[in-house]
Amino acid sequence: MTLPETATVLPEPLQDLLFRQARTAHAFTDEPVTDEEVRLIHDLVRHGPTAFNSQPLRIVLVRSAAARARLLPHLSSGNRAKTAAAPLVAVLAADTEFPRRLPELFPHEPRAAEWFGDQTAREQQARLNSAMQAGYFLIAVRAAGLAAGPMSGFDPAGVDAEFFPDGRLRSFLLVNIGRPGPNAWRERLPRLAYDEAVSEV
Amino acid sequence: MTLPETATVLPEPLQDLLFRQARTAHAFTDEPVTDEEVRLIHDLVRHGPTAFNSQPLRIVLVRSAAARARLLPHLSSGNRAKTAAAPLVAVLAADTEFPRRLPELFPHEPRAAEWFGDQTAREQQARLNSAMQAGYFLIAVRAAGLAAGPMSGFDPAGVDAEFFPDGRLRSFLLVNIGRPGPNAWRERLPRLAYDEAVSEV
Repeated sequence: MTLPETATVLPEPLQDLLFRQARTAHAFTDEPVTDEEVRLIHDLVRHGPTAFNSQPLRIVLVRSAAARARLLPHLSSGNRAKTAAAPLVAVLAADTEFPRRLPELFPHEPRAAEWFGDQTAREQQARLNSAMQAGYFLIAVRAAGLAAGPMSGFDPAGVDAEFFPDGRLRSFLLVNIGRPGPNAWRERLPRLAYDEAVSEV
Repeated sequence: MTLPETATVLPEPLQDLLFRQARTAHAFTDEPVTDEEVRLIHDLVRHGPTAFNSQPLRIVLVRSAAARARLLPHLSSGNRAKTAAAPLVAVLAADTEFPRRLPELFPHEPRAAEWFGDQTAREQQARLNSAMQAGYFLIAVRAAGLAAGPMSGFDPAGVDAEFFPDGRLRSFLLVNIGRPGPNAWRERLPRLAYDEAVSEV
């Protein structure tokens, strides 16, 4: 097996690209997001770790005008115009039936799927791991040279009823994706200092 | 305001460093994780986006032998030996009282804290956003040139009772951190193909 190279620190300008200078975009150019870019994002995301290798994140790309029209009514009013104009919108959702894939994804524990018979525990695991994957997703959008506009201002039950009528998927984040347009950025909001977020016992 | 540089695509070897070649480590060298490394990880994580800029992730570093002895009984048996031997263990937890900080973190909406009066909704937001930050955290550990060993095999209620007796924080992930030692890696498990995780409407 090829060993990962772990001695390398990500160079500071690329730390800035992914984290410090990267910003939530609120306006985009008309330039489309290509299939190659979406495939790169997915290829990065899928390699991120999840518990039991469960990979519960499902990504639904909303690109056509018809699909956009189904999505927009479920957004908070302040999110509609920018989402209507973004080149691409991704609905991030958790697959609550992820255990069905575990025999294949976690093959050394053939009974892993049985650990999640309780629906509450299953949904909590799906939400935790798909949200971690959403973190990977936003970093991956930036790694692909694009800007992301994540939004939680929408009605998840409405989106689920419209797009996921079988009840298996739970939407939890919308992400506008594209290249930043005029007035894309708002002022950077304050961040917690080290001692406010980190402690040692 | 300085605009982020979004035309840059992360070079492929660094995509590999953070995602494709990076792996969950199960054994570490004795070399300590330095304060500077932990501060770099935090500085990257804190710049990642969260809803309402809420930043609910709290990171508790477990380094001393005494603190380690309080943690280990709450781990699943298969996680104890490697966690006892790791140079550093981080307990990732969600601050369910994150709205208390919103007047300062989300100042343009002075009433934002009032949106989270319902405890269920508040805890769900805390868990979603802290899990996204956990995604940033694991990528940031790798960006700092270190290896991460995330684990969900522990008893969160037991950890919370031991470390967070006031009931405000909810632990959801443990992460061993260090430099990979002998036999650090297991075989890469299968990942979902593009069409299994991504669809277009």
